[in-house]
Amino acid sequence: MGLRVSEIDYYSLHGIWGAYASLVLGRIGKGAGVVVGNVQPPSRSLFIGYQLGNESPRLFPFCPDTRVGLDATAYIDPDAPAKPVLAPPAYSYFQSQEIERYISLSGEEWKAGLVSFKVHSFFGKVPDPALSDPNVLRSHIRPAIYLSLTFDNTAHSEPLTGIFGMQGVRRPLSDSTNGTMLGFAHGTEWGFAIFPEETIDEVMDWRVVDAVFNGNRPLRRLASEGALRFKIPGGEKKVYHIALGVYRDGVITSGLRTQSYYTSLFHDLEEVLECALRDTSRMMQKSAQLDTSLEQKKLSDDRKFLLFHGIHSYCANTELLISEKGDPVFVVNEGEYQMMNTLDLTVDQAFFELEYTPWTVKNELDFFALRSSYTDAYGIAFSHDQGVADCFTPPGMSTYELPRLSECFSYMSFEETLNWVLTASLYVSRKKDIQWFTDNVQYLEACLASMRARDANQDGIMDIDSDRCAGGAEITTYDSLDVSLGQARNNLYLGVKTWAAYVCLASLFEHYAPQYVSHIQEARESAQRAANSIQARMLDEGYIPAVFESNNRSKIIPAVEGLAYPYACGWPQLVAENGPYGSFIKTLKKHLDTVLAPGSCLDAVSGGWKLSSTSHNTWLSKIFLNQFVSEKILGFTDERIYRDGIHAHWLRSGSAQWAATDQVHSSDGHDMGSRLYPRLVTAILWTL
Amino acid sequence: MGLRVSEIDYYSLHGIWGAYASLVLGRIGKGAGVVVGNVQPPSRSLFIGYQLGNESPRLFPFCPDTRVGLDATAYIDPDAPAKPVLAPPAYSYFQSQEIERYISLSGEEWKAGLVSFKVHSFFGKVPDPALSDPNVLRSHIRPAIYLSLTFDNTAHSEPLTGIFGMQGVRRPLSDSTNGTMLGFAHGTEWGFAIFPEETIDEVMDWRVVDAVFNGNRPLRRLASEGALRFKIPGGEKKVYHIALGVYRDGVITSGLRTQSYYTSLFHDLEEVLECALRDTSRMMQKSAQLDTSLEQKKLSDDRKFLLFHGIHSYCANTELLISEKGDPVFVVNEGEYQMMNTLDLTVDQAFFELEYTPWTVKNELDFFALRSSYTDAYGIAFSHDQGVADCFTPPGMSTYELPRLSECFSYMSFEETLNWVLTASLYVSRKKDIQWFTDNVQYLEACLASMRARDANQDGIMDIDSDRCAGGAEITTYDSLDVSLGQARNNLYLGVKTWAAYVCLASLFEHYAPQYVSHIQEARESAQRAANSIQARMLDEGYIPAVFESNNRSKIIPAVEGLAYPYACGWPQLVAENGPYGSFIKTLKKHLDTVLAPGSCLDAVSGGWKLSSTSHNTWLSKIFLNQFVSEKILGFTDERIYRDGIHAHWLRSGSAQWAATDQVHSSDGHDMGSRLYPRLVTAILWTL
Repeated sequence: MGLRVSEIDYYSLHGIWGAYASLVLGRIGKGAGVVVGNVQPPSRSLFIGYQLGNESPRLFPFCPDTRVGLDATAYIDPDAPAKPVLAPPAYSYFQSQEIERYISLSGEEWKAGLVSFKVHSFFGKVPDPALSDPNVLRSHIRPAIYLSLTFDNTAHSEPLTGIFGMQGVRRPLSDSTNGTMLGFAHGTEWGFAIFPEETIDEVMDWRVVDAVFNGNRPLRRLASEGALRFKIPGGEKKVYHIALGVYRDGVITSGLRTQSYYTSLFHDLEEVLECALRDTSRMMQKSAQLDTSLEQKKLSDDRKFLLFHGIHSYCANTELLISEKGDPVFVVNEGEYQMMNTLDLTVDQAFFELEYTPWTVKNELDFFALRSSYTDAYGIAFSHDQGVADCFTPPGMSTYELPRLSECFSYMSFEETLNWVLTASLYVSRKKDIQWFTDNVQYLEACLASMRARDANQDGIMDIDSDRCAGGAEITTYDSLDVSLGQARNNLYLGVKTWAAYVCLASLFEHYAPQYVSHIQEARESAQRAANSIQARMLDEGYIPAVFESNNRSKIIPAVEGLAYPYACGWPQLVAENGPYGSFIKTLKKHLDTVLAPGSCLDAVSGGWKLSSTSHNTWLSKIFLNQFVSEKILGFTDERIYRDGIHAHWLRSGSAQWAATDQVHSSDGHDMGSRLYPRLVTAILWTL
Repeated sequence: MGLRVSEIDYYSLHGIWGAYASLVLGRIGKGAGVVVGNVQPPSRSLFIGYQLGNESPRLFPFCPDTRVGLDATAYIDPDAPAKPVLAPPAYSYFQSQEIERYISLSGEEWKAGLVSFKVHSFFGKVPDPALSDPNVLRSHIRPAIYLSLTFDNTAHSEPLTGIFGMQGVRRPLSDSTNGTMLGFAHGTEWGFAIFPEETIDEVMDWRVVDAVFNGNRPLRRLASEGALRFKIPGGEKKVYHIALGVYRDGVITSGLRTQSYYTSLFHDLEEVLECALRDTSRMMQKSAQLDTSLEQKKLSDDRKFLLFHGIHSYCANTELLISEKGDPVFVVNEGEYQMMNTLDLTVDQAFFELEYTPWTVKNELDFFALRSSYTDAYGIAFSHDQGVADCFTPPGMSTYELPRLSECFSYMSFEETLNWVLTASLYVSRKKDIQWFTDNVQYLEACLASMRARDANQDGIMDIDSDRCAGGAEITTYDSLDVSLGQARNNLYLGVKTWAAYVCLASLFEHYAPQYVSHIQEARESAQRAANSIQARMLDEGYIPAVFESNNRSKIIPAVEGLAYPYACGWPQLVAENGPYGSFIKTLKKHLDTVLAPGSCLDAVSGGWKLSSTSHNTWLSKIFLNQFVSEKILGFTDERIYRDGIHAHWLRSGSAQWAATDQVHSSDGHDMGSRLYPRLVTAILWTL
């Protein structure tokens, strides 16, 4: 059943893995339904409810007061004398206090009155398409999810009429399937289906709710609302499994011609839906097993919520494409921004992907190396992203980065280079893919040289901006924060991340290519310099300022962020207090202990984590990552670490409209940016 | 230059023939731009204008106050201290009195200040793809139109900066073409392009107008606005030809799997645009020749306007598809309703298609015979339509028709059977396609038998409703009018159309299959019975009531509509006062003379044509058709016929938002239904 949530009025994005599509629902009185090729919640109605006997029908409150498409008034003379029509039964929506909402790893469930429905949207691991049989792939890369609907009429003698329907559909599926499936579709692009049973029929009308509960009318194919009607006799309980699927045909990207990968496995939407329906019981089992496996992890309810919510939104942003040569191309789109494979997200999402789809990490690394690396005056570097809204940029270019800036939209050349190195380190060390390391070692060598070339004063910290900035200055992934986290040069956050990249490079060469003696030595040398430089910045007040310039005095949590990578690579001694960098680690621990104080990096109003003492813009994906470091690596166990209840509340209140929001205001969690975002899967670190 | 229009604030739909796409523009202060897969005007800005020296820039008023996509506020902390930015130059829109608007057969032109632009959207005949070389087709079934932009800076010494841009684009075309074209695209679906010149560059920014007139900024690829910037030195005049193209890839229809026909000729949007640009001068010549040829027709300016406006909207609704077997499938979509190949439109659009694309008439006839005919209790009949919004219905079924009704949405079995017969008659008699007649004679035989079977009392007039009505009653194409034109049974309008179908069938058999003696005799017999029955209904007041039931006393103009078909088939003697049906024709002439009176079928307020004395809902496509009959067949030449100025005014005022509206209110022309409609091409009859 999952975890009951106390605040029910928030959107979930139930992503269909790899399809860049999702079922969006959850806000009271707002739209719900399927979205394809984007993540914005639709302003359409979703009809789920029932009528018991002749009582007034009850529906879940997923119906905004909007019309979709035309209705009868477009066809009939509005001045014609109105004819008396049979008044449809008045229906009402369940009130919030009548509704129970549960969230789980595999989906979520809603209950009210005699009806409940469960969304099954996440099914865990997806195998590498390059190594898998197409028949296996058809169950894993099938752009469909499920909705199980239960009507419990055991306590009543009158029959119950159930409804499941949507606005925005234009055709009954019985038309194109000769009745072998019932349901409705929006063109060739999305739809929902069920196998026929005697108790189910299709209803399509201008106002489908009226039609469902008002006798038998023929299908009005000009309408834009369609529903399945279920008849449950008194004394019975019935469960119906509905498949929701999507299908975008043809080439859908520019710059590089690709199609959705699933088009190589399925002919059309109907085939997707039929295949999904045939596979229902196995998939139900799979989702149940997934939920059980999670139960064994000792996670607090708040952390479960944050993890599940984050995973569902991540899936909504995933897009598996196939090139004209037949190669899989994996893209994670960046929430509302729609940027493709933003590399400063990739590195953090790698923790999640290495659990469920390690091959996508390799795919992203390869695709970045081949298409989105470039050489500036100091050596190799990587682009921020690879395109926007299904439009790939030309090689070596991002949509985001512009010259002559020193804030948002400037280049991230240095950080993205670290990100590629760290992602590669995670992949190779966790998956022991020696072949990939061997094939790509020249990139790692080039990265090491490039990183060192940007350290003019040889203190281990980046101090030269890419010449692509053309007089501007590089920034970090924390682009909308103030200078404390936004400026790349002489930055504490980036300094520790640089140290992490050096120690990871050193360890990688050590383990997989010990003959590269000079590289190991160089990486260690730069790592030690970085550690020394950062330690030397410790102030008497017990913290390290965010920027080693301009007398900056901001306090930041992500000083410790970089420690996550060597640890997650499986090299805990590198971040141990008794390890080779013990004194550095102890300094960072002291720093964290100082900054985690109310008014500094604990918000004075809410008590939630505030990444920088000088900005109220705080990022949940990064909070989760830094919580992991604080707890698992630095050993903090006091109540300052466990602010998860506050963070979960933020997502269900201030940012309820934008599942899941990354950038929120630290006082009340209202959305400030990065809405509908994939990166919150850093919460997976809690389960490792 | 075309015909100058006095009222400039109305939309034109510049359809891209066969692509179900158009460039929509023309309303002051409302959106303009490209729409694909529908005909609804977009709420996006179209930027056309210039800045002279350092003066304030001037733009055409095609910019609603709406934003498309995200802008900087989605990325940057809204609470961050605002930085002083260089204020962009304030621009202003041309006022209506500064603007000249011209319409022509091939497109239209706008002028204001130093800028003018001409849309070239209609190029005349399109050859049959089944009989044409793909290289020829690439210039005819190319989903692109042109926009010619002229900046006249001859009278000034300062340089002039011109702009052409749109909201809703997501990528510069130089990216995917390596700079061989400049321009912008919305994904893979639509875009505009020009070949590079030194005086042109691409600009893309959150607010592209600001960026165009405010120095040189790099392309901001995250924005949703893109523009071409032109630099015209003092003393010079420059003309730029821009291609606008669309491309929908993959299977786009359900029920029957088809793709856009152009996907068999072009690889992608870029190829369409490049091919169009290479062909610019030939296409400019073609559009000029088309306009010249029209000049030779002696049409009044009002009739020219009505014809051009109707043709442009018709093209916007055309969609040429290709089946999986490689066969062309031609569809005309029904304006705002999006129904596919509505047969009661097909018959009237045939007059136009026989001039420009006679093969589409054959295609529609064949497709209807094979897929959309059915057999009810009385014989063969035809469906109202073949689907909606790119969703084909199953064979023998329409989206529109429902049982148990006697008004809008009931069956049109009888009228659609007449429509197929009349369309076939027009096609065979005009194109002398004996082969097609021979291949399809069994359908014509079946139609004759079916028509006669629905005439129980053998008076030539349909008096039995199809059993598909299940107790309801059949209606006519005039579905939203009152009973005077809406009811099929014993209806004057349909009676005369029935007579026309009988005489056309008789003549067809006579000309092409004289051995079918009994069919000729039967058709003549029924025609004579119909003529006699109708004549017998003449009242002393000098008119025939609209319905031969319930003491109906409505007066209707379309009593004469049916006469158009035998005449247009090339058999004028059948509708001549001294011909075989002379007395019948004279009676109808007398009828028309009576009803064409103020307060009856001339609106008492506006003076425009009112199809029925008992309804204020009047249909322009049908007005044109009945004007043709009145003038060319019945010989009326008095001022009651020439109300074109009123009708043209209706489309540019009351229905200005919905180019072109068919159903309008006869008092002021405000839209009542059938918006964005294709059928107004009946105006072509004036040129025959």
